Amino acid sequence: MDKKNLDEFYIILVEPKYAGNVGAVARCMMNFDFNNLYLVNPCNINKECLSRAMHANSIIEKAEIFHSFANAIKTMDYLVATSSIEYKTDKKQLRNSILIEDFTKKIFEIEGKIGLVFGREDYGLYNEEIALCDIMLKIPSSNEYLSLNLSHAVAIVLYSLFIKINYIPKEIRSIGSVEKEKLYSFFSNLLDEINYPNHKKDNTKILFKRVMGRAMPSKWEYHTLMGVFSRILGKIKMQKKQKY
Amino acid sequence: MDKKNLDEFYIILVEPKYAGNVGAVARCMMNFDFNNLYLVNPCNINKECLSRAMHANSIIEKAEIFHSFANAIKTMDYLVATSSIEYKTDKKQLRNSILIEDFTKKIFEIEGKIGLVFGREDYGLYNEEIALCDIMLKIPSSNEYLSLNLSHAVAIVLYSLFIKINYIPKEIRSIGSVEKEKLYSFFSNLLDEINYPNHKKDNTKILFKRVMGRAMPSKWEYHTLMGVFSRILGKIKMQKKQKY
Repeated sequence: MDKKNLDEFYIILVEPKYAGNVGAVARCMMNFDFNNLYLVNPCNINKECLSRAMHANSIIEKAEIFHSFANAIKTMDYLVATSSIEYKTDKKQLRNSILIEDFTKKIFEIEGKIGLVFGREDYGLYNEEIALCDIMLKIPSSNEYLSLNLSHAVAIVLYSLFIKINYIPKEIRSIGSVEKEKLYSFFSNLLDEINYPNHKKDNTKILFKRVMGRAMPSKWEYHTLMGVFSRILGKIKMQKKQKY
Repeated sequence: MDKKNLDEFYIILVEPKYAGNVGAVARCMMNFDFNNLYLVNPCNINKECLSRAMHANSIIEKAEIFHSFANAIKTMDYLVATSSIEYKTDKKQLRNSILIEDFTKKIFEIEGKIGLVFGREDYGLYNEEIALCDIMLKIPSSNEYLSLNLSHAVAIVLYSLFIKINYIPKEIRSIGSVEKEKLYSFFSNLLDEINYPNHKKDNTKILFKRVMGRAMPSKWEYHTLMGVFSRILGKIKMQKKQKY
């Protein structure tokens, strides 16, 4: 998938009250390759905002400011409201939400500009604002304390989108079947050399296979471990020879 | 799955410089059901800290303060270093990392206290600190601006664990710190006995730690592997004795 897609996302903060939060949002936008910040009736964008933005001052500088939510969303093709509050019954369509996992599976299929809307630090989004959005996204959180810090909520949503678009299951450069067989056969030889009880051998070999299977050693790790095993075998055999 | 498991996680902040960040970390801990905060040589815990913590003041109040990293991690069974920096070659064992997705799949199998270690706002964790950890966790971020705000990094990791525990069942439990130390020290003895080149020893020990860290052996697997190691050592020592 193409990274350019993240340029079609717009982070829309509705009436943020604390300049520090706006700065923190800008920083995490840059951390996850998002560029477009819209601010609806924001607090004063002061020094604290720029200091919290760190290297992301450019995002603050080119942020667009609107005096109404309606104006901010005019050019958007798809709007996503965010909230940590959700009603349990599905009669309450307004705040009936989807979770991030399901959201990130589907959102890249949407064409055009996508607005991610985050509400006020204290009241979140009003029902009228949520009603204007196409979907409501819920960030799961503790029943003890539902309400996330604004920039934390943004960070979690943007991170989730970022890894969806970038996450290529890490190429572990894991070892192939030939190396694997060699490693297991070395281990098997080792068991023979140390007079490991016969009735336990098969089980222990499988156990070793499982442990190494979970560890998924890289080629480098494989060669180092083989070096250790081969020295152990050499040592034991040499000593045996010297003994006779 | 039982939520109690999150009580076995300890958030360890190493030399945080800004009280606001500590407060923000406490808040997101409560947002995601985490309770235990350890602070190593923190900045002054002032009003800003408490104001950013919001309803999570109790977490700040019962946070434990340590004067060295070594003391803070003494009672931990499994340590997770976090960083956004990673070396590309897999020869650099120290900073060879796993991604959050793979991490959250395995971490709940670990038994005992798990320390999630977050470094300084500016320098992160030192190499010596990372070397003491069992595994290194990388939070993917933009090549343009890698470095996350401290509390954002914490929020993303805790959120990932929170949704994992609230959605997916856990399986095998893994070994604690006493067993782990014993396994590593057996391996270290083994390297001595086979005259492993001195200049390679440290790297190979860390490599073994990383491989075993990823494998997360269960108690049964641990005892079997220890049985094998102990037979190997016994064999080598016995042969040496017979030789003379």
